Amino acid sequence: MSSLSTPAVTGSKASAAPLPRRTDFPHFLAIPTRWMDNDVYGHVNNVVYYSYFDTVINEYLIREGGLDILDGAAVGYCVESQCRYLAPLAFPEIIDAGLRVAHLGNSSVRYEIALFPQSENTPAATGWFVHVFVAREDDRPTPMPAGIRACLERLMVSGT
Amino acid sequence: MSSLSTPAVTGSKASAAPLPRRTDFPHFLAIPTRWMDNDVYGHVNNVVYYSYFDTVINEYLIREGGLDILDGAAVGYCVESQCRYLAPLAFPEIIDAGLRVAHLGNSSVRYEIALFPQSENTPAATGWFVHVFVAREDDRPTPMPAGIRACLERLMVSGT
Amino acid sequence: MSSLSTPAVTGSKASAAPLPRRTDFPHFLAIPTRWMDNDVYGHVNNVVYYSYFDTVINEYLIREGGLDILDGAAVGYCVESQCRYLAPLAFPEIIDAGLRVAHLGNSSVRYEIALFPQSENTPAATGWFVHVFVAREDDRPTPMPAGIRACLERLMVSGT
Amino acid sequence: MSSLSTPAVTGSKASAAPLPRRTDFPHFLAIPTRWMDNDVYGHVNNVVYYSYFDTVINEYLIREGGLDILDGAAVGYCVESQCRYLAPLAFPEIIDAGLRVAHLGNSSVRYEIALFPQSENTPAATGWFVHVFVAREDDRPTPMPAGIRACLERLMVSGT
Repeated sequence: MSSLSTPAVTGSKASAAPLPRRTDFPHFLAIPTRWMDNDVYGHVNNVVYYSYFDTVINEYLIREGGLDILDGAAVGYCVESQCRYLAPLAFPEIIDAGLRVAHLGNSSVRYEIALFPQSENTPAATGWFVHVFVAREDDRPTPMPAGIRACLERLMVSGT
Repeated sequence: MSSLSTPAVTGSKASAAPLPRRTDFPHFLAIPTRWMDNDVYGHVNNVVYYSYFDTVINEYLIREGGLDILDGAAVGYCVESQCRYLAPLAFPEIIDAGLRVAHLGNSSVRYEIALFPQSENTPAATGWFVHVFVAREDDRPTPMPAGIRACLERLMVSGT
Repeated sequence: MSSLSTPAVTGSKASAAPLPRRTDFPHFLAIPTRWMDNDVYGHVNNVVYYSYFDTVINEYLIREGGLDILDGAAVGYCVESQCRYLAPLAFPEIIDAGLRVAHLGNSSVRYEIALFPQSENTPAATGWFVHVFVAREDDRPTPMPAGIRACLERLMVSGT
Repeated sequence: MSSLSTPAVTGSKASAAPLPRRTDFPHFLAIPTRWMDNDVYGHVNNVVYYSYFDTVINEYLIREGGLDILDGAAVGYCVESQCRYLAPLAFPEIIDAGLRVAHLGNSSVRYEIALFPQSENTPAATGWFVHVFVAREDDRPTPMPAGIRACLERLMVSGT
């Protein structure tokens, strides 16, 4: 399905950029597919890719940054996400989700994610995801907590 | 949460464009939220927005374009999608999903979608979604069937 | 697929009981299917039926009983659910979910649900769902709020 | 939340039976939770438990029994499922799903599943799931393929 990723097909300039490799990502999470991830065409449904994005990001924030999703004063809201689908995935595959930080602001962070089939070095999908941290109390942007900032700095890749 | 949609926050030039209105969309589907759409923060999870995109598109292709998802010779694969989140949605709201066609190629189509809370004229989210039609047999791009093309032409908006 | 519902197949005595009809249910909610509800076999996945159960119940509790899912002192936890699958459902069908109350305790309620394809009087699935209301503060069973009890009493069917 | 599992609360005689332990299950699959599994109450939503059931079963059938979900002549349809919820689960926990076969018929199989939090010997949930194998061609019950039967026999537990 690599022919699907040509710029002519996706109509996106971004697609002309070279694809990232495993070594471009400082953090990985193995995400097993589930039976119901597959849709009627026998592949993981396009929607589900974003749940892999969501999961690799929040698992990292909780384990490494101390994000408290029930009671923390700051909450991460997604304000934008995007995905390019390069090759199909299917249950019962296990996906290696790679994560890096492309931009770290005061209250916002832009992640880049790539999904690799196990034992492959070319991603089946790439995408981005932007979190804005807001105060749980009033939904207004707030500087991200120190523990979260520290763990995100470790995911910044020079040159991005 | 309108402050979340400022360009400074999303870091995206696209966000400076004026938001579309209901009259900018020739087709709508009412999509009721479900209990499990809400995540731990009490809003519809970012992933679920894409299932609304998926649903308004495929419902239209099946009802108006004769798409046969089980046996049709051509299958629509998603090669790219994107969403900007402008305001929260929550169960038990009903969402009006607006759909238009921004670009219609030989085998591909680029949809634009906006999600409106009922009785509001400002979208809670906007996004795009690119379908490439491939032959079910060999997964290679194929011209889209005539019935599908005809129904998509009716969703093209002059000036987009 | 009606042959699938014979007692021999399901191995359950319950399946010998006559199937409920639309008139057996005092409340209905129309639930449109979504594209990703379908699984690889082209039907709504068995898991998704429970999200229809969840949705008809909670939509009713919020709209009719004043359930406040974000701040209410009492929270409804599911302690048991069951579903018998009698006939396939598929996107883009709209499902009529019927709801009644079979048993109303001090802090618990047992719902019975049936899913009807539109314009059919025989359910495609039947099931039950038990809620126990607990205090949000300490997760201990608590009498259900008066507004919720009142709306559930209206769903009790004589003879059940 | 153990108090929720008393017979008085669930209204089910089955709940008086002793809970199964890890040693009661011949097969396990580790299933990591996902961010969107959590619902507004901060726990894995009741619906999602069934996707864990679905996944441990089908992953086993594919890997050990040669189930071909795209082209196989026989297809497993779920005709009944049930779950008792004994304790909450929450992202980012990893769940150990235990699987055994309680009854193996000619074309049907009744599985029993228990979900264990890692490093616990008491399940957070138990349930059953009944598959009937049908011919893909005409949806009529058919004897299950030999490879599938063989792998299921290995999951039968004496005394069940």
